[in-house]
Amino acid sequence: MMRPTVSSLRAARVARSGAVRAFSSRDLIPNEPAKPEVHTDSVPGPASKACIDKIQDSRTHVVVGDYEKSSGNYLVDADGNTLLDVFGQISSTALGYNVPQMIELAKTPEFIHAALNRPALGSFPPKNWAEVLETGLLTVRPKGLDHLVTTLCGSSANETAFKAAFMAYRQRERGSADAPFTQEELESCMLNQAPGAPELCVLSFKQGFHGRLFGSLSATRSKAIHKIDVPAFDWPVAPFPELQYPLSEHAAANKAEEARCLAEYEDILVRHKAHKPVAAVIIEPILSEGGDCHASPEYFRSLRLIARKHGAFFIADEVQTGVGATGTFWAHEKWGLSAEDAPDFVTFSKKMQQAGIFHRAETRPNAPYRNYNTWMGDPMRALQAREIIRIIKDNDLVNYTRATGDVLTAALSDVFSRHQGLVENHRGQDEATFQAFDIANQQKRDQFLGKMRAAGVQIGGCGDRAVRLRPTLTFGPEHVAILADKMDSVLKEIK
Amino acid sequence: MMRPTVSSLRAARVARSGAVRAFSSRDLIPNEPAKPEVHTDSVPGPASKACIDKIQDSRTHVVVGDYEKSSGNYLVDADGNTLLDVFGQISSTALGYNVPQMIELAKTPEFIHAALNRPALGSFPPKNWAEVLETGLLTVRPKGLDHLVTTLCGSSANETAFKAAFMAYRQRERGSADAPFTQEELESCMLNQAPGAPELCVLSFKQGFHGRLFGSLSATRSKAIHKIDVPAFDWPVAPFPELQYPLSEHAAANKAEEARCLAEYEDILVRHKAHKPVAAVIIEPILSEGGDCHASPEYFRSLRLIARKHGAFFIADEVQTGVGATGTFWAHEKWGLSAEDAPDFVTFSKKMQQAGIFHRAETRPNAPYRNYNTWMGDPMRALQAREIIRIIKDNDLVNYTRATGDVLTAALSDVFSRHQGLVENHRGQDEATFQAFDIANQQKRDQFLGKMRAAGVQIGGCGDRAVRLRPTLTFGPEHVAILADKMDSVLKEIK
Repeated sequence: MMRPTVSSLRAARVARSGAVRAFSSRDLIPNEPAKPEVHTDSVPGPASKACIDKIQDSRTHVVVGDYEKSSGNYLVDADGNTLLDVFGQISSTALGYNVPQMIELAKTPEFIHAALNRPALGSFPPKNWAEVLETGLLTVRPKGLDHLVTTLCGSSANETAFKAAFMAYRQRERGSADAPFTQEELESCMLNQAPGAPELCVLSFKQGFHGRLFGSLSATRSKAIHKIDVPAFDWPVAPFPELQYPLSEHAAANKAEEARCLAEYEDILVRHKAHKPVAAVIIEPILSEGGDCHASPEYFRSLRLIARKHGAFFIADEVQTGVGATGTFWAHEKWGLSAEDAPDFVTFSKKMQQAGIFHRAETRPNAPYRNYNTWMGDPMRALQAREIIRIIKDNDLVNYTRATGDVLTAALSDVFSRHQGLVENHRGQDEATFQAFDIANQQKRDQFLGKMRAAGVQIGGCGDRAVRLRPTLTFGPEHVAILADKMDSVLKEIK
Repeated sequence: MMRPTVSSLRAARVARSGAVRAFSSRDLIPNEPAKPEVHTDSVPGPASKACIDKIQDSRTHVVVGDYEKSSGNYLVDADGNTLLDVFGQISSTALGYNVPQMIELAKTPEFIHAALNRPALGSFPPKNWAEVLETGLLTVRPKGLDHLVTTLCGSSANETAFKAAFMAYRQRERGSADAPFTQEELESCMLNQAPGAPELCVLSFKQGFHGRLFGSLSATRSKAIHKIDVPAFDWPVAPFPELQYPLSEHAAANKAEEARCLAEYEDILVRHKAHKPVAAVIIEPILSEGGDCHASPEYFRSLRLIARKHGAFFIADEVQTGVGATGTFWAHEKWGLSAEDAPDFVTFSKKMQQAGIFHRAETRPNAPYRNYNTWMGDPMRALQAREIIRIIKDNDLVNYTRATGDVLTAALSDVFSRHQGLVENHRGQDEATFQAFDIANQQKRDQFLGKMRAAGVQIGGCGDRAVRLRPTLTFGPEHVAILADKMDSVLKEIK
């Protein structure tokens, strides 16, 4: 297979879909650099390290950013190195740095007033709040889910969904929204005891990641370093299918593995009914932090239907997968569920900037102030979300990402064909640019990431030995060509 | 006692402290209205109600704000009513609406770049991050606490402190920071079981409020409606002294009550050692949401020292009390602890806009990525915090708040003297403008709040029948005079 060139790639993309106009990130970000440039011996360089050592926990610092100079898909660091960013701030950069249209938004009085007068949204919403949501977030609401609660981050979005699920579960047990709380419930909850603080749980999946606050961390099953020494709820974990890649070559074995996991999952739901019923099941459409683990749409459809069969609400955690990078606006759209069968909750954050949950009327608490807090979201981030959504729609960026994904699949396949044994399990080819692959072992994976950075490309790891690509939605064939070229060189050095 | 006038009040304030220059909110906010104006029959009026009915959970909406028109201590609503705001977005407005100096900040490239290029702070901090913290938040670090971790809200600040406390507690048990985790710990934590997910707990106090996520909600003991139907950790609650007001008239009884509560608190710490040791104790310097409950500095000093005696870390939750409104920058300063005895953690949010925790080196996790997440704070909010801190210092607003507090105490005492039986337990006279009082019962309290709003003054309730005043730091004698005048009229109507 020939190495793709920018022009051949763009031709392929245009040919692939007449619907995709010839978008380029330069349309949106005219001054985006043409290529990475690194002039220090390593990244981070000396100026970045000088910044690093002064405060907070600098052990996790990777790149010290110069965000005034960064542009589009290029992150400029404190040493003046220009890095192609294929990680996007842990998957949270939707369009790129300093997109001029976003900067214009930030200069509007509406944005400035929202940024400086942060209200306690639940009780003192701004008068344009309904309009901002209706012309923004609600235009991308998942099929079947008409209600929206905003939050400040992905962890709190998931915990807001947990709370809503627990309340709705208990309400259903009571038989009606008007059924009063008993005196015993009112008193016992103040002591953190049942029945007021009920013996209910959230079921999650091995390798799943749902945040790092106490409820979300109890559902998180990614790595021990995320969980150790933190008290956790005694909530159950179900196995997630360990599929073999490429999926198409292991269809029968994978189907059997999914069936095995579904059976065990249903068994856990049944067994918990007696002592601690599962009120909610939470899963990511692609288990990202845990290593970009995939499963089939049929598997996810079964999960959802089995949850309902046993009375558990179903939460699709789209904090990382949401907002277009998988080639559909929400990754769970690929499950092909009807509006009626759609997840009970879809949670989001990261690329959307304004975090929150979409849900149905039935999971709205029966009384006010039950799922409430001071800020409950941020009007300035909701304005930002609306503008991001507009830009995505105006430029047909979800389709563009799909087209770029085709180019990326071809380019990576070509590179990997020359590095067999070192690279394996290329996955996400049906998920646009939301792709990943494994490197032989953790040490070589970390070496790969470091050398890529020194070569001018910032990528992230996940799981034990995976590399995850999390570019922006404006990441295009020209960026793919640079990525593939650098990867080929770096993999040669490692081999 | 004569009714205070603006000029007499200002004279009294200036006389009180030569250090307080003749500041007025008009110095900072030249176009602040002179008085409230309500032209609808009730608040919210028809335009506000029209906004209200469209989205989210509108049952908790109190005022629909027109934040472009609001100014200083005056909140303009969707109907064009101008309300004197003595609640400040649940205590989260430091200076007032649309302070011109803050608007200038929002127009700077630094602010715009920070607002639009939100980084994953833990790994990709901006190059000016250390400088922004060192010239901002770190200039107001509590005595004894040199380390800072930023977060997105008060609940996550408290949970970040909990996690740090649990990790440090286990590290101390292991004997050294280098002691490796055991295989059993690494495996059991993935199943949410001990020893990896340890049997440790956080002790909190009756009436305490620490947030509404799963860990913080387990420590929250304010009201059943905050907790019911949400699973909680089996963590202990200690009694908080039920003092009689005015404190000066019940010194002996109050001292005995505090001693009783301290003994029970210590007993809980001792009893939990065998099966579920208390790793952290958390308390607000004034239990705000729970009803503005006060105790003496001696009581708080004893709490802290008893916690240390039994190996528990001590967290001062200053989310609501912090940032000047109590007449010291941090409310716990009044406890008079040495740097060595200072709380192990001080958490903050609300008025500071950038939330977080201050702590010591000893409670820094021994390995990176242990107390970590994607955003970990927000550079744009840190810039805002720095500017708020500068304005507070430049205008000596902590002292100004104390002077205003004297005026407020006198004015409220005067009003209450005419409404004995209806109003009681005036408290916080030593806490600047952070004052509260009870009304005879909940129904009359709610009636009072509604009528005050209709008269043009927005105040908040707390506890069962308390009214809490949470004005900005620019709230001055001229605002006190309006508040007292309206209160007198409204209380007459209720009596």
